Amino acid sequence: MTVIKQAAIIGGGVIGAGWISRLIENSIDVTVYDPADDAAQKVDAVLKNSRYAYGKLISGPRPAEGSVSFCGSIADAVANAELIVESVPERLDIKQSVYAEIESTAASNALIASSTSGIMPSDLQAKMKHPERLLVAHPFNPVYLLPLVELVGGAKTSLETIERAREIYHSVGMHPLHVKKEIEAFIADRLLEAIWRESLWLVKDGIATTQDVDDAVRYGFGLRYAQMGVFDTYRVAGGEAGMRHFMAQFGPCLKWPWTRLMDVPEFSEELVDLIAGQSDEQSGHMTIREMERIRDDNLIAILQALKGNDWGAGKTLARYEHQLMQAANDE
Amino acid sequence: MTVIKQAAIIGGGVIGAGWISRLIENSIDVTVYDPADDAAQKVDAVLKNSRYAYGKLISGPRPAEGSVSFCGSIADAVANAELIVESVPERLDIKQSVYAEIESTAASNALIASSTSGIMPSDLQAKMKHPERLLVAHPFNPVYLLPLVELVGGAKTSLETIERAREIYHSVGMHPLHVKKEIEAFIADRLLEAIWRESLWLVKDGIATTQDVDDAVRYGFGLRYAQMGVFDTYRVAGGEAGMRHFMAQFGPCLKWPWTRLMDVPEFSEELVDLIAGQSDEQSGHMTIREMERIRDDNLIAILQALKGNDWGAGKTLARYEHQLMQAANDE
Repeated sequence: MTVIKQAAIIGGGVIGAGWISRLIENSIDVTVYDPADDAAQKVDAVLKNSRYAYGKLISGPRPAEGSVSFCGSIADAVANAELIVESVPERLDIKQSVYAEIESTAASNALIASSTSGIMPSDLQAKMKHPERLLVAHPFNPVYLLPLVELVGGAKTSLETIERAREIYHSVGMHPLHVKKEIEAFIADRLLEAIWRESLWLVKDGIATTQDVDDAVRYGFGLRYAQMGVFDTYRVAGGEAGMRHFMAQFGPCLKWPWTRLMDVPEFSEELVDLIAGQSDEQSGHMTIREMERIRDDNLIAILQALKGNDWGAGKTLARYEHQLMQAANDE
Repeated sequence: MTVIKQAAIIGGGVIGAGWISRLIENSIDVTVYDPADDAAQKVDAVLKNSRYAYGKLISGPRPAEGSVSFCGSIADAVANAELIVESVPERLDIKQSVYAEIESTAASNALIASSTSGIMPSDLQAKMKHPERLLVAHPFNPVYLLPLVELVGGAKTSLETIERAREIYHSVGMHPLHVKKEIEAFIADRLLEAIWRESLWLVKDGIATTQDVDDAVRYGFGLRYAQMGVFDTYRVAGGEAGMRHFMAQFGPCLKWPWTRLMDVPEFSEELVDLIAGQSDEQSGHMTIREMERIRDDNLIAILQALKGNDWGAGKTLARYEHQLMQAANDE
C-alpha cells in the first residue's frame, strides 16, 4: 500500500517528530538527523503521544510500525531515502546549506520536502543542483493527527514532483492541498497570521484576555471551521439568496473599523510579558504534556464524529481506514 | 429552571429565527415582529431545522416547547416581554427607531439585547429613555447550536443588566462571554473579519479558489479551533519552553509579508462575480437546506464528541443537559 519504504527527517522538533510519527505509523522506515543532545528524547515524547493517538483513532487494522534510526550527519541520514523532509529553523541560509549537504549523498530523484511555514520554494531551491525535486509540504501541528498538508512548488519544481508528493501524502492518510501560485505563508498561515495579529491587538489594548480570545474562538466560529471553512459557512448564512446576497450585505463592513489593519503591534518585552502572564494564568495549572493529551483526545473525537457524517477531515479518515483495511486483506 | 417566561424577537431573519428556536426550546414563550410578508414561513424553516437538531443533540429530557406568536407591531410584541431581542438590519438609525418604539410599551426593567455584529452599545443606547437596560448579546449562526454569546455593555449599561443577561443566556444552554471593554465588532467578529479580508485577497489574486481556502481551514487549523483557540494552541506548540519561547520564535514573523495587511480589497462587481461563481462551482450541487443539515449534523456530532471529553463547548452541553435533567426531576 505504501508508496515509499524509506524516508529521512532532518530536524526532530515538534514538526519533524510529528512527521516521523505519521511515517512510521505507515510502515515507512525513517532515518533522522538532529544535532541537539536531547533530540532522541524529544522525539520519543512525541512518538509516545502519537502511538496513543493512533491506537484510539484507527478502528481497523494498523500496519506494522516502521523503524527510527538516528544518524550522525545529514549525508548519512539521506543516503537511501526516497523522501527527505526538512524541518529545520525558518532561516533561508540554514535551509539552503542543509539542501547542499542533502544533495551530496541523496539519490537525484529523491523528493525533498520542506516543512517551512512561509518561505517560498523558489527561494529554497535557488542554489540546488536538482531543484526540480524540491517542494514545500507544509503540515499542521499535531502532524500525526491533522490531515492537511499544503503542497507548493517553486519556479523550478517539476509537475512530477507535485504528483509524486500528492501520492505519498495521500497514502499516509493526509489531505494534500496543492497551492497553485507561490506566495509567502501559502494559504492557511496567512489566515492564521491575520488572526494572530488581531488577537495580539485585542490583548495589548486590554479589550480581551488570552482566555477571552480563546473562548471567543472555541465556543463559536471554531466549531464551524472544523467542518465548513470560510466561504461555505457564509454561503449558508446568506440563505437561499446565495453568496451574491451575502456579499452585498456584508461586503461594506470591510471598510468599517472592525480590525486593526493598518499596522502590526510592536513586539515589545511588555507585550510578551502580558501575553505570557495571561497564558500562565489561563493554563498554567496544566503541563504541556497534559494539554497535548487533551488536544489529541479532542481531535480524535472530532475526526471520528465527522467520519460518521463522511465530511471533510472525517472523510479523509474514512478513506484512510478503508485503505488500511484493503492493505491488510491483500497481505 | 428558566429565568424568564416571555421574550420578544424584533426581526425574524436567520439570527432572529435562531433566537426564537433557542428560546422556545427552553419553554420560553416568544412574540415576534417582522414586517416581511414571508416572515412566518422563513421562521418556520429555521424552527424545522432546530427541532431536528435538538432531537439529536439532547440525550436526556427536553422541556416543553414555548409558543410563538406573530404580532402586528413592535409595541404589541414587546408589551409583556422580560427579554427583548433586536435582530434588525445593521443600521444605527433603524435600530434606534426600533428602540424608541420598544420603549413606548415595554416594561422599564425589560432587558433589551441587540444582536448586532459590530455596532457599539454606547451608540445604540444614545437616545434611549432607559439606556441602562440595553446591551449587545451577539450570537453566532446557527444560534440554536453554537453556545457562544458575546455580552457587551455601553457607557450607560448597568452592571445588573450584564449579570441578568448572563443568567438568562446561561439558563438556555449558552456560554456568555463578557467583553469588558467596548470596541467595534467585539472579539470574534474582529478575528473573522481579518480572515475574511485575507481570504478575499487570496481569491482575488488567484492564489486560491474558495474551495482551496475552505479546505485549508477545515482539514487543518479549523479542527484545532473547535476546541482550543488561538493562545492555548500556540502554548502547546511552544512545548515545555512555554509561551514566551513561542513568542520569541514566531513574533518576528509579524513583520514579514505574510498577510495583505495594508489595505482592503476593493469590493468590485468583478470580485463579487469571481467569489460567487467559485462558490457555485464548489457547492452549487447542494441546496442551502441540504448544507444547513450537513452543518448541523456535523456541529451536533462535534459537540457530543467534545462532551465526552468534558471540554469547551462540550462542557457547556454537558452542563446544559445536567440542568435539563434536574429541572425534569424537580417537576
